[in-house]
Amino acid sequence: MPDFTKGAAWIRGEVVPIAEASIGVTDWAVTHSDVTYDVVPVWDGGFFRLGDYLDRFEASVAACHMQIGMDRAAITRALSDMVARSGLRRAYVAMVAARGTPIIPGSRDPRDCANHFYAWCVPYVHVVKPDVAEAGARVWLSDEVRRIPADSVNPLVKNYHWGDFTQGLFEAKEAGFETVLLPDHAGNVTEGPGFNIFALKGDRVVTPQDGVLHGITRRTAIELCAAEGLSIETRALPISELMQADEVFLSTSGGGIIPVAQIGERRFSNGAAGPVALRLRARYFARLEAPDDRTEIEYGA
Amino acid sequence: MPDFTKGAAWIRGEVVPIAEASIGVTDWAVTHSDVTYDVVPVWDGGFFRLGDYLDRFEASVAACHMQIGMDRAAITRALSDMVARSGLRRAYVAMVAARGTPIIPGSRDPRDCANHFYAWCVPYVHVVKPDVAEAGARVWLSDEVRRIPADSVNPLVKNYHWGDFTQGLFEAKEAGFETVLLPDHAGNVTEGPGFNIFALKGDRVVTPQDGVLHGITRRTAIELCAAEGLSIETRALPISELMQADEVFLSTSGGGIIPVAQIGERRFSNGAAGPVALRLRARYFARLEAPDDRTEIEYGA
Repeated sequence: MPDFTKGAAWIRGEVVPIAEASIGVTDWAVTHSDVTYDVVPVWDGGFFRLGDYLDRFEASVAACHMQIGMDRAAITRALSDMVARSGLRRAYVAMVAARGTPIIPGSRDPRDCANHFYAWCVPYVHVVKPDVAEAGARVWLSDEVRRIPADSVNPLVKNYHWGDFTQGLFEAKEAGFETVLLPDHAGNVTEGPGFNIFALKGDRVVTPQDGVLHGITRRTAIELCAAEGLSIETRALPISELMQADEVFLSTSGGGIIPVAQIGERRFSNGAAGPVALRLRARYFARLEAPDDRTEIEYGA
Repeated sequence: MPDFTKGAAWIRGEVVPIAEASIGVTDWAVTHSDVTYDVVPVWDGGFFRLGDYLDRFEASVAACHMQIGMDRAAITRALSDMVARSGLRRAYVAMVAARGTPIIPGSRDPRDCANHFYAWCVPYVHVVKPDVAEAGARVWLSDEVRRIPADSVNPLVKNYHWGDFTQGLFEAKEAGFETVLLPDHAGNVTEGPGFNIFALKGDRVVTPQDGVLHGITRRTAIELCAAEGLSIETRALPISELMQADEVFLSTSGGGIIPVAQIGERRFSNGAAGPVALRLRARYFARLEAPDDRTEIEYGA
């Protein structure tokens, strides 16, 4: 029996243990990071908002001029089969479209490549550990690294260009913080590795609009804010405005709504998780159970 | 007998045919493009300027806070053994340091990862085909994509963040050009996928200094310009100044000095390769034979 305890992958039509899933070292997915992907959470045996993630993934694949030879039904079947085989009931599920390698050896033309699709799943990933999230995360605002601008690499097309985040994470970890938030070149905040950010002031919530991924969990968070009676503004968020917020929180498919207790030296809510952020967090986990948003997985016997 | 005609790889201490060399889909080299690399050319059975490439590679590995557990002698041995086994006498040789995956499952801390080294070689790659290079390449200057800025991802640490180049290459290829040159956010030119750029005006040559890789072939080109009696300036190169050049040429380890006949609508040297660029190109190929710059490979019987 194959061991799926660490996860599974769907690759070239086969479901294999995650440790056996690999791609060639000359695939442009590696050598040019020429790849787009998406991540859908599985919670208690069902995909959450699968249709929204697939919408975004298909838009990203088209934006990259890739043909992966699989329609939405085929992708859905691959993801479902893979998660079912893995047995994982709470999982981080990645779907990936890769440029591949040129059919004409030595070609430097991306149009000559054989694109391909693969997917993998591992036990659910928390961007910030749950106990830390409950207490309020401590976030480092980089003063050295700027988020890659949208006219260099489009953040709406979900991508693996994480060099700015990685450099920022080293700064953050060395300073004793959980994660990092990157500013842009104009003094606004953008996003961090795997999350969007929200600032609450009074009954108004602001989240950056440009130069960031439009996360599906960001969308959920916006809907939950509305349900909480808060007004939402999606626009540029200057660092100075962020620092004057009453509460700050993150949104991520890897943990939902995460209250922020501290950004650099600045403490919010007396250095604890804010009450509104905690209510939104509870609403998020309740929403994960809402039947309308779920695609149940048939795990078999 | 393994088939090395398409190339070879050194991976986990073994030399294998290139088609068998792969890395895990969850390696941060893939999922975060968290990798640094270098490429050294092999020409007629010898590495060219191997020491300079190794200097840069080791500096990049240190800048990424990676430990690959191999010193310079071990890397040299791995590269030599691999190329010898491949039998390739003219080769593109890549050495790669990858972040790996966290030793602690689920960790998001890059310090928790097991870094690793691998290498691969394929038949020599020409960034621009030799016949096109001799006639003068046609280069597209992107008007939509800006090079990733140095304060987002440091271009001196050679990396696979090619999203800007790939987007630009699609523009270039659709417009019928060979390759693409990217401007920065301040109206200066930077570099293209795999090459640096030079502008000649009178007896003065300018090449960009900031926001670009300091290519080893760029260094060779600078030395060859001096030998040609030209003065060199390494500084910002505005687009307007580039367009007023007498001649333009590229430098790349994938083909040496490449004359440019045209950038967008602007033709140089009446739309042909410039005479100075062609002389530098000839000097480059002569330099590849210079014993002082070569590390001969022992191919065995």
